[in-house]
Amino acid sequence: MNLNIGIDIGGTNIGAGLLDEDLNIIYRIEIPTNKDRGYDFVKSQIISIIEGMRSKASKLNQKIDSIGIGLPGIVDIEGNNVIYNANLNWNNVPLGKNLRHRFDIPINIENDATIAGIAESALGVMKGYSNSVFITLGTGVGGGIIINHKVYTGSHGLGSEIGHMIVGENFYDCNCGNNGCLETFISSTAVRRYVINEIEHGFINTSILKNVNSIEEIDTKLIFECAELGDELSNKAVNRMAKYLAIGIANIINIIDPDIIAIGGGVAKAGDFFLDRVKDLLPRYILFKELDFGEIKLAKLGNDAGIIGAAMLKEYK
Amino acid sequence: MNLNIGIDIGGTNIGAGLLDEDLNIIYRIEIPTNKDRGYDFVKSQIISIIEGMRSKASKLNQKIDSIGIGLPGIVDIEGNNVIYNANLNWNNVPLGKNLRHRFDIPINIENDATIAGIAESALGVMKGYSNSVFITLGTGVGGGIIINHKVYTGSHGLGSEIGHMIVGENFYDCNCGNNGCLETFISSTAVRRYVINEIEHGFINTSILKNVNSIEEIDTKLIFECAELGDELSNKAVNRMAKYLAIGIANIINIIDPDIIAIGGGVAKAGDFFLDRVKDLLPRYILFKELDFGEIKLAKLGNDAGIIGAAMLKEYK
Repeated sequence: MNLNIGIDIGGTNIGAGLLDEDLNIIYRIEIPTNKDRGYDFVKSQIISIIEGMRSKASKLNQKIDSIGIGLPGIVDIEGNNVIYNANLNWNNVPLGKNLRHRFDIPINIENDATIAGIAESALGVMKGYSNSVFITLGTGVGGGIIINHKVYTGSHGLGSEIGHMIVGENFYDCNCGNNGCLETFISSTAVRRYVINEIEHGFINTSILKNVNSIEEIDTKLIFECAELGDELSNKAVNRMAKYLAIGIANIINIIDPDIIAIGGGVAKAGDFFLDRVKDLLPRYILFKELDFGEIKLAKLGNDAGIIGAAMLKEYK
Repeated sequence: MNLNIGIDIGGTNIGAGLLDEDLNIIYRIEIPTNKDRGYDFVKSQIISIIEGMRSKASKLNQKIDSIGIGLPGIVDIEGNNVIYNANLNWNNVPLGKNLRHRFDIPINIENDATIAGIAESALGVMKGYSNSVFITLGTGVGGGIIINHKVYTGSHGLGSEIGHMIVGENFYDCNCGNNGCLETFISSTAVRRYVINEIEHGFINTSILKNVNSIEEIDTKLIFECAELGDELSNKAVNRMAKYLAIGIANIINIIDPDIIAIGGGVAKAGDFFLDRVKDLLPRYILFKELDFGEIKLAKLGNDAGIIGAAMLKEYK
């Protein structure tokens, strides 16, 4: 029986696991990313993790089949260079190349939303479906696309960037420079920003303000809590978010038409309260109402999705 | 050597061809669709065409391998029912089922934009590429998606409806009931409608009006001609169309990231004059400018694309 290493590089911590063929995490490490110390330091930490895992495997008389790495950025199609990583402030760093130079083991690197999509496809709500799309709603919006049971990132590694699909006109521009990106309507940042903008424009009769000392303290969790208790501004914000998520899902259906779309990430923790609003709105945006369309479900895997998905990357390539 | 039948059902004519393995059309029929006489009549004409082709093949001592049919509508995933066909006013007609009942030959039915995409993929500008997207700009906007050298229409037959991707807010609603569909910005209908709306709102200092007796006579060809001659309103309309086509293409790149995107259909006849404006605008909407993205080219096949693509449908399924 051979083992695989899955590494999940986040802005705060690096999590890694040694997985057996049944996807059990038989050995696990978590260390601070120390991103302020720069790429070379982070890279040396990743190398130490892999070396630790390798000696663990050899004590068990087992071999490592592959190393998979997930990170919040984009990787070129050869998996050599991390072109961009917002969280770590990396630009064009040769992580794949450096690690391949060091280890004689197949190494794959992918965007973390794509990795989470793989985990959902292998073990979660997307399990067993041929075509599926994972959307993660957090401070940004990421996507993972599975087509014919394989991860799909396009011909140049640019695909599955669902958060930057332009879907309307918004009162502020996206970090990417465009106006109207899905991310600026449905990320937690977007919802918070919408509420603050409304308050600054005079919508002050809201229970949100009774729960904070200053508008800086407003967060998405509070907005969702106030919405559930019937607050008007909070519901306006949640309904706007639900509308644009429904539009984003309908656009995905009009193009990819998957078997299932799974919603994950922090915002999705609001659960059925939010998802039911999206499901209510969705049919109006579907073109052919006579045909079935994909199910919309909450993702079910927790924090280990990043490690598990990364360990399976080779299989899904 | 076996033969394949390709049938292209349009609102005005039905074109059909008997093709050899080198995709030569060795026998050809074109008859009026007579759509006003209803589905049963049109179906009987299609049956006559197939019977004529079959007896032609048997005179040549050859067998028919498959029948492929393209039409401007949507077909269920089993290829049994034409769910919707705007041009022919068909709703849920069992064309596939009826033809299979009659002929013991594999029959595939697909959307005509998908069929044109297959033809471009086999013989045109998309030839040799693994992942490609065809966009047809006419009175509506259609799409054909090729992934891994196969036609991709999704899990329920709803995919590749690129014209109904929501990309913004528009001054009029789409036929489908939504606001902001790509089709309402970049179809010939959309460009004409935008110009007429501007004129009705007072933009009357335009050479377009010197070329017509009434605003009803304005068409997209005239708008493009006036734009090339420097007319301000015409250029405003063409630039708006180019902007939204660039957004539509960028959205496709952000999701599917194909090797190539081919633009076909009537509006594309404006050629490089129009395409150059789209190409100039596109980079600003691309997320990661460090990576290559797919080429944008004009489709190169003419009227026979519908017949040829239909005859190849079996191979691309």
